[in-house]
Amino acid sequence: MRNIKLIIEYDGTNYVGWQRQDSRKSLIAHRLSAQAGKSPGRQRKTIQETIEKTLQRILQEKVKVIASGRTDAGVHALCQVVNFKTNSRLPCRKIQEALNALLPDDISIKETQEIGNGFHACYSAKSKLYRYFILQSKFPSAFLHKYSWHIPYALDVAAMRQDAQCLLGRQDFKSFCASGSRSKTTLRTIKRISVRRTSAIGYPLITIAIEADGFLYTMVRTIVGTLVEIGRGRFEKGSLKKILLAKNRKLAGPTAPAQGLFLVRVTY
Amino acid sequence: MRNIKLIIEYDGTNYVGWQRQDSRKSLIAHRLSAQAGKSPGRQRKTIQETIEKTLQRILQEKVKVIASGRTDAGVHALCQVVNFKTNSRLPCRKIQEALNALLPDDISIKETQEIGNGFHACYSAKSKLYRYFILQSKFPSAFLHKYSWHIPYALDVAAMRQDAQCLLGRQDFKSFCASGSRSKTTLRTIKRISVRRTSAIGYPLITIAIEADGFLYTMVRTIVGTLVEIGRGRFEKGSLKKILLAKNRKLAGPTAPAQGLFLVRVTY
Repeated sequence: MRNIKLIIEYDGTNYVGWQRQDSRKSLIAHRLSAQAGKSPGRQRKTIQETIEKTLQRILQEKVKVIASGRTDAGVHALCQVVNFKTNSRLPCRKIQEALNALLPDDISIKETQEIGNGFHACYSAKSKLYRYFILQSKFPSAFLHKYSWHIPYALDVAAMRQDAQCLLGRQDFKSFCASGSRSKTTLRTIKRISVRRTSAIGYPLITIAIEADGFLYTMVRTIVGTLVEIGRGRFEKGSLKKILLAKNRKLAGPTAPAQGLFLVRVTY
Repeated sequence: MRNIKLIIEYDGTNYVGWQRQDSRKSLIAHRLSAQAGKSPGRQRKTIQETIEKTLQRILQEKVKVIASGRTDAGVHALCQVVNFKTNSRLPCRKIQEALNALLPDDISIKETQEIGNGFHACYSAKSKLYRYFILQSKFPSAFLHKYSWHIPYALDVAAMRQDAQCLLGRQDFKSFCASGSRSKTTLRTIKRISVRRTSAIGYPLITIAIEADGFLYTMVRTIVGTLVEIGRGRFEKGSLKKILLAKNRKLAGPTAPAQGLFLVRVTY
């Protein structure tokens, strides 16, 4: 069997996430999308099943697609990596052309290549990079509302940046993991974390980038939500370290909304 | 009566344009949106009526909003300028807050200020700047498809840039004006035109910027469509000048699709 690797871009707005997860998580995703004011009726598709159905139509055989990791409902990806096994002899170029022709506009296949059988999009991944965008303007933007968290009050970026450094290295991130998680261990290694002022179409943004060997369920968004509490002065400087060491989700800030989060790069 | 000026950002995707125009233009807009594969049933709103209805709800009186110029169905604006007269004494800050609270997410009010009674968003405008984005990638992007024209084949940017220069200055742009136009004169002054390679979220773009004292119906998009014919070699270099001088729309290229066009700045 051939092993095919795809690099995929998707706008997560209209999906319940990469994969329909167990009933508990599915319920959480459903509740979150309902809170975000989206009609749950329009939000039933997952990105995984959309791609699998289209691949099955093209390859005329059952296909199981493995991603580098699941993304939650409403989260976006610039470079999600997946792989699948197939008996089909269709050239990669043809597979990519057919996928881009048949998939909805909010999913696009950027690269397709044949890869050694040992490659597994999830287990082979060395690290993943996420970026989270906070829109720092008094009023929301007609273009950025689906791709950022709009926070109209000023945040202390220096304080956020300084506190964030304590997360570097191999640590137990239990405090930043939603209770629905089934992960065996809550140890992860954060290799890089940055909090920077950036901009887009004339709007001031705060961009939080986190690269780690893996992430727990809602980990990035819980770290972002906690950093925002520090940035607005609700949590005092230095509290991130205390929250980390307490290993208690209840001490962390709220989970930041999904639409600000982008999976940006997967390294193998 | 007070005269209020607003600066507005909108994502034109779900609108039939700024204003429902006369039946002929409305028909054209309808046909264009049908060609773009959009269900005309979902596309009945105009941006003008959406803003006027919301203002009437806030100010409790009939309001007529005047824009710097109409934008066609599917065209976007980063900084559309409008004004309206009102007897209401509601402070500008309150009007802006209420508008942003009640308008749909794809329209946002960036600035609100009281201005002298002589100010007319259309007649007082000295110039307008439009940008058009062409996506130069083999496959479309999940994020950029609503904000660019996807052209997968290579374009000769140097040839496009060189030919574009003949449009500078006061000229008769009849060749680049859709037949539905009711303009009295087809003379306009282009102050600046540039064709540059740019990029967004890792994708190569060609950005065409045109600043003029005014624009005819579909003028920017017809210029872009003609430049693309030159860029792909279907029209020979130097043909833009001949098309301009012929004053015949039939000689120009096709009208570029609306979703790549942004009104970027209005100067007073």
